[in-house]
Amino acid sequence: MTNQVIYSEFHTKSFGVTFKVEPILSYKSKFQQIALYDTESHGKLLTLDGCVMVTEKDEFIYHDMITHLPIYTHTNPKKVLIIGGGDGGTAREVLRHSSIKSVDMVEIDEEVVKVAREYLPTMSCSLDDERLNLYFEDGVEWVKNKVEEYDIIIIDSTDPVDIGEGLFTKEFYTNAKNALKEGGILVNQSESPFCTPEWVSNIYKKLNEVFPTVKTYMSNTPSYPAIWSFGLCFKEETKSINFDESRYKDENLEFDYYNCDIHKGAFALPSFVKKLIK
Amino acid sequence: MTNQVIYSEFHTKSFGVTFKVEPILSYKSKFQQIALYDTESHGKLLTLDGCVMVTEKDEFIYHDMITHLPIYTHTNPKKVLIIGGGDGGTAREVLRHSSIKSVDMVEIDEEVVKVAREYLPTMSCSLDDERLNLYFEDGVEWVKNKVEEYDIIIIDSTDPVDIGEGLFTKEFYTNAKNALKEGGILVNQSESPFCTPEWVSNIYKKLNEVFPTVKTYMSNTPSYPAIWSFGLCFKEETKSINFDESRYKDENLEFDYYNCDIHKGAFALPSFVKKLIK
Repeated sequence: MTNQVIYSEFHTKSFGVTFKVEPILSYKSKFQQIALYDTESHGKLLTLDGCVMVTEKDEFIYHDMITHLPIYTHTNPKKVLIIGGGDGGTAREVLRHSSIKSVDMVEIDEEVVKVAREYLPTMSCSLDDERLNLYFEDGVEWVKNKVEEYDIIIIDSTDPVDIGEGLFTKEFYTNAKNALKEGGILVNQSESPFCTPEWVSNIYKKLNEVFPTVKTYMSNTPSYPAIWSFGLCFKEETKSINFDESRYKDENLEFDYYNCDIHKGAFALPSFVKKLIK
Repeated sequence: MTNQVIYSEFHTKSFGVTFKVEPILSYKSKFQQIALYDTESHGKLLTLDGCVMVTEKDEFIYHDMITHLPIYTHTNPKKVLIIGGGDGGTAREVLRHSSIKSVDMVEIDEEVVKVAREYLPTMSCSLDDERLNLYFEDGVEWVKNKVEEYDIIIIDSTDPVDIGEGLFTKEFYTNAKNALKEGGILVNQSESPFCTPEWVSNIYKKLNEVFPTVKTYMSNTPSYPAIWSFGLCFKEETKSINFDESRYKDENLEFDYYNCDIHKGAFALPSFVKKLIK
């Protein structure tokens, strides 16, 4: 080989991740720059506006954590709303649960789904499930008119800039809370406390203004900025995190990352994270 | 600026971390290539044989986890052996505990300590503590003649290749176990289950052959290969992990990463890690 294409993404001014890649495609949709690469050790790599969204190798960590944890926290989850998640990985994991009868997936950019359907079959494999309704609309608008429709809302968004920004406002959180049924839970990806602490403290300030109970849990998907956080937000005040052990045992699903220990241990927060979200 | 120096370290064939750096020094000691860089967001960056050892920005995570967790697990830790740890960060954290009366630190490469003393004062700041005895010797040889000397042994080593290799053998583990007093605990950095699964399964196979109880806990230091594991090895069979809450409260130390929740939550292992170390 006489040349080598390097994709580097800086998460701070001087630190980030780097991949040796073979570019497959790169084009601008109506909303964002979509790029796809192949890599030797991580399989396909999808980026949006120059940020890693998923790699085939480690997407299981993020998708396990944004789906199974809220699903086994809820006592009776039947109807789920996914906002974003165009690669299909979140829908795939949600739909593994027989308890889930209906999923609305609202992705703003149809082109992301097209790319996923063509190049990321292990993620997009459940997008034709008959329980899934796929809408190419703006999630910010979607929740405006919904009242007590969903048991779980999953915000599988990009960062709080550009097209992702609207999914991190107090107004959006308020509308999403109204769209939750009694006992409802909203979960969002809430960024990296290590790399973008100011984003994280801003997100939790707003979440805490809207939801009576907000808990934070963590995991680490290697190709994302280090030490990732998720916000678990309850429509009603909630003293302790439930874990529906009997449903977990009944369903008997196998997860590469998530398990009963992780459900409990993921809420152990490093001291610097506790300070940030206080 | 018309040029930019990039340090990239690949943890798999095509994935790794990358830093924008200003080189400070790079030379070969008797044992290894020592290099030091400055970075805008992570402060000083020390590498040995082209592997990140520490950055000033995130060393607190690794050093908290390799020291405070075993120290608060042990019921009465007084004498500690540190093997490796030439930057001084492990010794600094161990010596914060008033319960610790004596520390032997055995670092093979005096040059690493020299660099740390000159350029990494926030890590090397406790190397002149009167409770610390610093020896520039081979840790593999050091433990050969020690019988029931230490309450805690901390293996703060490089990877299981080249000069680090001897610290990952069954013979070394056996000698180290003999060097532990009754109730003694050995902890080692046991590599990344995500990036080098074969190293991890090999380490745990050997540890389990030598120690009656071996537990694994995890954390993530962003500049290391993702999802880092530590092996907590008990001289005697141990059913559950102790946490000395009264000593923790009495000492009243502040840690940026470690806390009571982390002590318990860090043992929650992802499913793929459980399989690997089984």
